[in-house]
Amino acid sequence: MARWEPNSRGRLAAAAMELYGERGYEQTTVAEIAERAGLTERTFFRHYVDKREVLFAGAVDVQEVFVRAVADALTCAVPIDALAVGLDAVAAQFADHRDFARSRQAVIMANPELRERDLVKLATMSAALADTLCRHGVAEPAASLAADVGVAVFQVGFGRWIAADEEREMSLLLREALDELKALTAGAG
Amino acid sequence: MARWEPNSRGRLAAAAMELYGERGYEQTTVAEIAERAGLTERTFFRHYVDKREVLFAGAVDVQEVFVRAVADALTCAVPIDALAVGLDAVAAQFADHRDFARSRQAVIMANPELRERDLVKLATMSAALADTLCRHGVAEPAASLAADVGVAVFQVGFGRWIAADEEREMSLLLREALDELKALTAGAG
Repeated sequence: MARWEPNSRGRLAAAAMELYGERGYEQTTVAEIAERAGLTERTFFRHYVDKREVLFAGAVDVQEVFVRAVADALTCAVPIDALAVGLDAVAAQFADHRDFARSRQAVIMANPELRERDLVKLATMSAALADTLCRHGVAEPAASLAADVGVAVFQVGFGRWIAADEEREMSLLLREALDELKALTAGAG
Repeated sequence: MARWEPNSRGRLAAAAMELYGERGYEQTTVAEIAERAGLTERTFFRHYVDKREVLFAGAVDVQEVFVRAVADALTCAVPIDALAVGLDAVAAQFADHRDFARSRQAVIMANPELRERDLVKLATMSAALADTLCRHGVAEPAASLAADVGVAVFQVGFGRWIAADEEREMSLLLREALDELKALTAGAG
């Protein structure tokens, strides 16, 4: 019978990130992650299918939050404003996880296979957003463009948020990026 | 001594695309591609490093054309207009290759590894555009946003161009996509 372990998922994620940083992602085993977290491999596999999923499970949550917030907002907002609402929801989701996000990004950037996986996740997010926009009456190609724009603003704002020494909130940085985009497409600059 | 073969590169590409369509990308060998083209394997390897490069060599050319046109235009145009010039140049590059582009896309969509490679190529294109925009005085995050927008418009316009029964020119479809994007970010729709 599995013993209940308080916050075992979070402890496993923190332990994995420590080890990926210390000895590299490739060199780290699930057994080592479980040991560092003071848990069993069996507990690891109750939470994650493999060591890669530790890095990408959060991306699934972010996508869900983004898509749901955009969908809700589309009932009374034009697409660009619905994206702004979605980006606010995403910022709230990340909230206090800046250090984790920085460590995660360093691990991903050091490994080409993980970078490809990250690109796939972003493309999947864009496709999910486009699908939601379509189902709420936004015609193509506007739906796909809006989705790509939403992901681009997220990526750029996220990149600034995790930059060294950056202390401003993600919500502010995402909104600034969206405003930059509006200025850009309006032909300013 | 290598014998000169008229348009061997084009013949190899056409033969590869035929075989990828007929028997699948994974099942096709370089030897078969060379045979179908009436050429030797040695000639194949003078043009391509492997069978995957047949699919992606063109993407390198497109990126070069896009980046150069944007760089030239930036001397006297705001970023969004420079992107429009770049997209026109890309459309001219594709010109008469719609059937090849359709076949290529079908092969890529049928293979997850090739789809990842395609995403990497698009991310590389965006990074090259952002770098060019930066070197021409566009500050971050506007440069990265403009680059992502340029690639998003390209992707959407390209997707429409290769759609079944679509007969309109790529330049028109890219311009329409750019106009859609402008309307979208202006809050129309």
